[in-house]
Amino acid sequence: MTGPRYTPLIETLPSTVPFVGPETQERRMGHPFRARLGANENGFGPSPRAIAAMAAAAGDVWMYGDPENYDLKQALAAHHGCAPENIVVGEGIDALLGYLVRLTVAEGDAVVTSLGAYPTFNFHVAGYGGTLHRVPYRGDHEDPEALIALAREVRPKLIYVANPDNPMGSAHPGEVILRMVEQVPEGTLLVLDEAYVELAPEGTAPAIPPEDPRVIRFRTFSKAHGMAGARVGYAIGARPLIQAFDKIRNHFGMSRISQAGALAALRDATWQAYMHRLIAAARDRIGVIAAENGLSALPSATNFVAIDCGRDGAFARAVLEELTGDGIFVRMPGVAPLDRCIRVSCGPEADLDRFAAALPGALDRARARA
Amino acid sequence: MTGPRYTPLIETLPSTVPFVGPETQERRMGHPFRARLGANENGFGPSPRAIAAMAAAAGDVWMYGDPENYDLKQALAAHHGCAPENIVVGEGIDALLGYLVRLTVAEGDAVVTSLGAYPTFNFHVAGYGGTLHRVPYRGDHEDPEALIALAREVRPKLIYVANPDNPMGSAHPGEVILRMVEQVPEGTLLVLDEAYVELAPEGTAPAIPPEDPRVIRFRTFSKAHGMAGARVGYAIGARPLIQAFDKIRNHFGMSRISQAGALAALRDATWQAYMHRLIAAARDRIGVIAAENGLSALPSATNFVAIDCGRDGAFARAVLEELTGDGIFVRMPGVAPLDRCIRVSCGPEADLDRFAAALPGALDRARARA
Repeated sequence: MTGPRYTPLIETLPSTVPFVGPETQERRMGHPFRARLGANENGFGPSPRAIAAMAAAAGDVWMYGDPENYDLKQALAAHHGCAPENIVVGEGIDALLGYLVRLTVAEGDAVVTSLGAYPTFNFHVAGYGGTLHRVPYRGDHEDPEALIALAREVRPKLIYVANPDNPMGSAHPGEVILRMVEQVPEGTLLVLDEAYVELAPEGTAPAIPPEDPRVIRFRTFSKAHGMAGARVGYAIGARPLIQAFDKIRNHFGMSRISQAGALAALRDATWQAYMHRLIAAARDRIGVIAAENGLSALPSATNFVAIDCGRDGAFARAVLEELTGDGIFVRMPGVAPLDRCIRVSCGPEADLDRFAAALPGALDRARARA
Repeated sequence: MTGPRYTPLIETLPSTVPFVGPETQERRMGHPFRARLGANENGFGPSPRAIAAMAAAAGDVWMYGDPENYDLKQALAAHHGCAPENIVVGEGIDALLGYLVRLTVAEGDAVVTSLGAYPTFNFHVAGYGGTLHRVPYRGDHEDPEALIALAREVRPKLIYVANPDNPMGSAHPGEVILRMVEQVPEGTLLVLDEAYVELAPEGTAPAIPPEDPRVIRFRTFSKAHGMAGARVGYAIGARPLIQAFDKIRNHFGMSRISQAGALAALRDATWQAYMHRLIAAARDRIGVIAAENGLSALPSATNFVAIDCGRDGAFARAVLEELTGDGIFVRMPGVAPLDRCIRVSCGPEADLDRFAAALPGALDRARARA
C-alpha cells in the first residue's frame, strides 16, 4: 500500500507556511499574548453596524452565500465608480492572489517582486512553479524603477507591488504607480496590492481606468475595515481578466456572514472616517513610544508602524523575542536591511500601553544579549 | 496594450460555473423564492449554540482565524477517534477537493468518477487539466465495481465516490466502500465524499483506519449541521497526505466566525440528534407529497429526496421549471436516466407545505407542455 501520487511540482514544494499564527505561538508559550500587535490586524474592530449585520446573518447561515457576491459587488462598484463586472470578490486577498497566479503562471514562468515583500504572494508563485525574480527595496520603499527595469529584462507574467508597502509601511504617490503602469512591458500584468491604501495620504491611490488591461488592484476588508477574520477581499480589473477568475475560483467559497458584514461595513462611512482618525492617532502614539526609547519610527501610510531598532537584524530579532516572551505579539521584516525594524500594528490604547510598558525592558535585555 | 498572458491550460478552460445560485435565479425572475429547497441546504438551521457562538465571534472578527484550526481539529479528532494530524480543515469540501486535485492531478492525468456525480469535483479536475473517465450509475447508485474496474484500466490519480450519493440520495453499506478501498489500484487515491453520511443509516460510514494511505474522506458542516454559508469542511486521511495540503492551502482562509460556529455545533450532540429526526421526518413528508401526486420518492440517506417524475429528463425539467416559476427552488440531476427526477431538500414544514401546494399544478402544466 503506497500513498497517492503527487504531481512532480508538488513533490518539489517545501513544507513551509507563509506565516506562523499568533495562536501557534501562544500554544508554544503556554499563555496568551497580552497585546496582539503583530499581524497588521485592526484591533479597533469593525463598524458596530457590520458586527450587528454579521450577528444577524448567523441565523441565516444554513444558506450558501450568493456565489456571485452580487450585492457586495454592486456596492463596491458604486463606491469605486466602476462596473460590477470589473470586480471579483474572494476569500481574502490571499485567495485572490492564488487564483491570479494560477491563471497566469505556469511552471518556469517569471514573476517579479521585491526582496522582502509579501511572502504569501511568493508562496503562491512557488506553488504554481513560477520563478521569482526579486529587486531590493530602496530607502525602505519598494523600487518601481528597478521593478520595471527587471521586468523588461525577464518579461514576467506578473509584477507585484504593494502601495502602501508591507512590511515597511511606506507609500509612493499615486503618480509613481501610474508611471509604472505606463511602463509595464507588453504581456505583463501589474499586481497592485492596495490592502492598506484607505489609510494612506490622499493621492496614494492612483486613478486607473478599471478597463486598463495592464493592472489589477487588490483591496480588502481586513485592514481599514477591521474584518481580517471574515476573509473578504476583492480585485478591480479589466472585464476579461475579472471574468477569467470564474474559470477557477471557489464559487461557493464566501461565508454568507462575511458577505453581510462587508456590505454593512462599506455602507458605514461615518465609522470609516472615525477609524482613519483612530489609526492615525495610534500611529502617532507608536512614534512617541519609539522616541521615548531612543528609537525612530518610520513614516507609515498603513495601520502599522515599523520601528527602527537602530542595529542589525539579529538585534531587532532579540527585541522581538523579548517582547514575545513578555506577551507582546509583534512581527518583523524577513530580510536585511528591512530587518533592523520591528513592525507594530495600530491598536487600542490599552494594547499600546502594554507595548509601551514592555519595550524598555525588552530593549535592555536585547542589548544585554548582544 | 494587451491583457495578461494566461497559462495554456487556462486558455482551454470554458467559462462555465458548476452551479447557478438561487439568488441569480431570483434576480432573473424579479422575485424571491417562496421555498428554498434546491441546494441540499438544511433549512432547519444550525444549533442555537452555534448561532450564539457565531454572533459572539462577530466582535472578534478583527483577528484572523487561527491558520492551524487547532481547536476545531482537536475536537474533530476526539469525535472521530483519530489524531489532529489526520485532519485538514478548509473552506468547505469544495475548496478541499480543489486542493486535493491540485496536489495530485497534472495535465493529462486520469481521474475516475461517476457520470452525473458532483459537478464541482469535475470542475476542479478540468481546472487542473485532468482527464475525467466516467462510469454510469447502476440502479440509481454509484457503481463501486465498475469504478474499480475502470480504475484498474486507466490507473487514475483519483477515484471519486460519494456515499451517500448526491444527487440521488442513495447509499451503499459501509462494507461496500471498504471493499472498494481494498481494491483501489496501487498509486490511486479513493476520494470518499461523505458530506451526507451523518444522516445515513448506521453502518454507512465504514471504519477506515485514518492512516490508510489509499483513501481520504471528506466531511462538512454544511448539511447535517446546517451551516452551508459558513464554509467549513474537513478531510480525514493519512498524515503525509494531510500534511501535503499545507504546501498549497490558503492558510488564513477560514473565517474566524465559522471556526467558532463549527466548534459549537460539533459540541451540541443533543441538537444533532434532534436534527437527524427532523430531517428523517422531512424525508418522509417529501415521500408522502410524492405519493399524493402519483410519483415515487427514491429512498434517501441524505437531507434531500429525489422524486421520480415518471417520464424522461425533458418532463422532469418541465416540472422543475414550473415549480421555479411558482417560486419553489428545486434542482435535478444533469444526466439520463437520473434526470427523470427532481431533487428536493429537506426543510421546515412551511417550506414543504408550499412545495406540496405547488407540485400538483406544476405537474399539470408540465404534462400540458409535453
